[in-house]
Amino acid sequence: MDGLLRRGKTILPALKNWFGWCQKQQQCCRFYCDLHARQKCVSQHFQSMNLREDSIASQQTSKPGELTCKSQRLMLLAGLIYPASPGCFHYMPYTVRALEKLIRVIDREMQAIGGQKVNMPALSSAELWRASGRWELMGSELLRLADRHNQEYCLGPTHEEAITDLIASQGHLSYKQLPLLLYQVTRKFRDEPKPRFGLLRGREFYMKDMYTFDTSKEAALQTYALVCNAYGNIFNNLGLRFVKVQAATGSIGGTMSHEFQLPADVGEDRLMMCTGCDFAANEETINPDEKHCPVCKGKLAEYKGIEVGHTFFLGTKYSSVFNATVRTAENKHIPAEMGCYGLGVTRILAASIEVLSTEDAIRWPSLIAPYQVCLIPPKRGSKEEKGAMLLEDLYDCIVEAAPWLKEEIVLDDRTQFTIGKRLKDASKLGYPYVIIGGKKVLDEPSLFEVCNQNTNETLFLTKEAIVNLLSKVQTR
Amino acid sequence: MDGLLRRGKTILPALKNWFGWCQKQQQCCRFYCDLHARQKCVSQHFQSMNLREDSIASQQTSKPGELTCKSQRLMLLAGLIYPASPGCFHYMPYTVRALEKLIRVIDREMQAIGGQKVNMPALSSAELWRASGRWELMGSELLRLADRHNQEYCLGPTHEEAITDLIASQGHLSYKQLPLLLYQVTRKFRDEPKPRFGLLRGREFYMKDMYTFDTSKEAALQTYALVCNAYGNIFNNLGLRFVKVQAATGSIGGTMSHEFQLPADVGEDRLMMCTGCDFAANEETINPDEKHCPVCKGKLAEYKGIEVGHTFFLGTKYSSVFNATVRTAENKHIPAEMGCYGLGVTRILAASIEVLSTEDAIRWPSLIAPYQVCLIPPKRGSKEEKGAMLLEDLYDCIVEAAPWLKEEIVLDDRTQFTIGKRLKDASKLGYPYVIIGGKKVLDEPSLFEVCNQNTNETLFLTKEAIVNLLSKVQTR
Repeated sequence: MDGLLRRGKTILPALKNWFGWCQKQQQCCRFYCDLHARQKCVSQHFQSMNLREDSIASQQTSKPGELTCKSQRLMLLAGLIYPASPGCFHYMPYTVRALEKLIRVIDREMQAIGGQKVNMPALSSAELWRASGRWELMGSELLRLADRHNQEYCLGPTHEEAITDLIASQGHLSYKQLPLLLYQVTRKFRDEPKPRFGLLRGREFYMKDMYTFDTSKEAALQTYALVCNAYGNIFNNLGLRFVKVQAATGSIGGTMSHEFQLPADVGEDRLMMCTGCDFAANEETINPDEKHCPVCKGKLAEYKGIEVGHTFFLGTKYSSVFNATVRTAENKHIPAEMGCYGLGVTRILAASIEVLSTEDAIRWPSLIAPYQVCLIPPKRGSKEEKGAMLLEDLYDCIVEAAPWLKEEIVLDDRTQFTIGKRLKDASKLGYPYVIIGGKKVLDEPSLFEVCNQNTNETLFLTKEAIVNLLSKVQTR
Repeated sequence: MDGLLRRGKTILPALKNWFGWCQKQQQCCRFYCDLHARQKCVSQHFQSMNLREDSIASQQTSKPGELTCKSQRLMLLAGLIYPASPGCFHYMPYTVRALEKLIRVIDREMQAIGGQKVNMPALSSAELWRASGRWELMGSELLRLADRHNQEYCLGPTHEEAITDLIASQGHLSYKQLPLLLYQVTRKFRDEPKPRFGLLRGREFYMKDMYTFDTSKEAALQTYALVCNAYGNIFNNLGLRFVKVQAATGSIGGTMSHEFQLPADVGEDRLMMCTGCDFAANEETINPDEKHCPVCKGKLAEYKGIEVGHTFFLGTKYSSVFNATVRTAENKHIPAEMGCYGLGVTRILAASIEVLSTEDAIRWPSLIAPYQVCLIPPKRGSKEEKGAMLLEDLYDCIVEAAPWLKEEIVLDDRTQFTIGKRLKDASKLGYPYVIIGGKKVLDEPSLFEVCNQNTNETLFLTKEAIVNLLSKVQTR
């Protein structure tokens, strides 16, 4: 026990004057509580090691001939991701926080339209893919393997076969249960010929895939509109400008398809958008000689976009192969009319950084920023040093008024560094709010410098004004 | 729009008298809101299709020669899981809800001791496993594959190599940042020779794996104790009786290891527990001729257990191979002292069902039950039929008093069935609370029949008493 406490003392000098959570706990609980308290401290965050622009970070981003883009470079520099193998990344703690928040945003919209969440295995039997004809069709994009009994599998890049087979196994769906909307958020695999752009085009990535089942084409098209509308809500909630364009159906198949694109120069898709009406299409769906909008004959302008969502009206392509049937009100059994709907979850994360960030500082959609607030106390030994106590009091007041921010506030306790140096790091990491105990912290009343990094506004505010401001911050 | 509304009307007769959420919405929002409201209705739940003991469910559980156990049988019968391929299951919506709750319980305890959550790829380069010598050692338990460039990978069953290589890549850890505790909750893969017992021994499963880094053996052992203590908290929070036993280090290696076991007849591990002191060990760590406790010489009794957690003190086994070093207070660079710690997440789910359930009814740890409350209104056409309104009012009052239960209450709207039939289904699925609008619902005041399925108590309670009772239900 002695050693345990001694250790707590050695490693936690920065915490000494901070956050009195543990004072009344008995000694044997000290270490435990200290570890919990340490979670708030930037000095203890795994990523912060990477915040220096040192040789490690620079090497990663400048391998000769390697394609990079802004989000990849910024995420590597900030220590948000680290390459494991081509197209496969370790997600560091800040990224995991953002990812989990994004999944909650998606869950909410999917469940609001009646989506039920399932989880299907990554290992997908070759038999299923042979039945649909895609074992051959997908070529070398499928990662394939055999188990110890020489049974063949692929690692699912998408799950039309699996879900349709699952539905078929349950007997006939009744029309009373339709539309049935099943979705999952799981890791998917695709053996990209050239993985690049960090999380924008990886070989292992998180995708939300939804599959819907209906009794008629008319009903299925209503469901299709419903899911597209939910996708729009998701991007609107994130504050991301998107366009929905007509798209090719590719290896998924079906008779109608749309992509949700975030306009961005680094985007790999070329979009044709009408200057006269709301027609928008992926260039690959348009006759290359066509310069005019097929709807209003207006002029078509070209943009680049990052595809973040893709919807398909499948009809009975898969349901007829796997015999997934629905029972109609007239007691007939017919193949289900299906739709499938993908959202690139990790891709949305990177794409939002791509479109919102500056060249050297990450900006997040507020709703999914890893942390909402960073507190920067005065430098150790500065004449404002005792203002640190006022930041501690501010923290308590914020958490009392807005308990949902408790896990959303970090403290940059690296008080050996100047405020300027720490503010620069905070800018790189993109906390929506940075609150500094600066020159006016010892004024009467105390004034804190508050930077809204998403709007680039800086104000000097009292404690009460800050509490009032942050009470309006939404975290879900 | 007409078709849309007609469709809403056709499919939702059961909802007609239920939950007036959408009444004030404009018509174009009807369908959307109805879908949201339907989420509460058992008739619309994907699993409920499977609740009949029909031929499909029976077939699954009685393939000749297939090993089964209680949790597998019950989970298949209740439609909680569905087999995809040997050792790989589809998790249905109730299971996903329980799984996500369990992950929250685990997250809380891991973060309370300072754990930072990461996420590492499933694809793990052969190079890393060759460096540690485990590419050969793991034999046919590793699922191996090659990509389009003939680079070899395995699907990670565990991530000692990956995390140690990641740490090494970050330069020297400073003693000021230690202990560093990194963990993830991800899907793992193991090519079991005989996958069996449903989620208890699968080939694809969710595992929580934590890796810790310290500067000395003494410090690493303190961290080891800290994580073991957190594991104890998790099982205590779930209300699961567990034993911590000394264990073999197997292919992971290291110099000390413990398993967390849930005593159960179906368990595949044999445990020797002293009747005189708290010594407990996996039989494989004990000389088979030894009949007495090595600590107190007391008698050893044999039990069977399901291994749900496994902890290893690794020392420098991996850190010295991958050159993952820490900088000490004396500015020396030495290999990190490591620990690794696994929890079988989906296995805990199944094991808790295994130990808590009866032969024909699932019982969950309350904290992770998919839903906390099931409301059963009177049968359509019964003389208590109008009591349905009183259950609606009860729902509103519960949600007002305990908003955290809003997503935790389902309505068994299959009013074509008797209360008895629906109560039987509710018993099989194991909602902690079932509330029935039965014979006394039209009494003055109304009395509802409240079954606490975990304690087997049934009481007739007024609305106020129920609200009071449920306000105490914890969901996190």
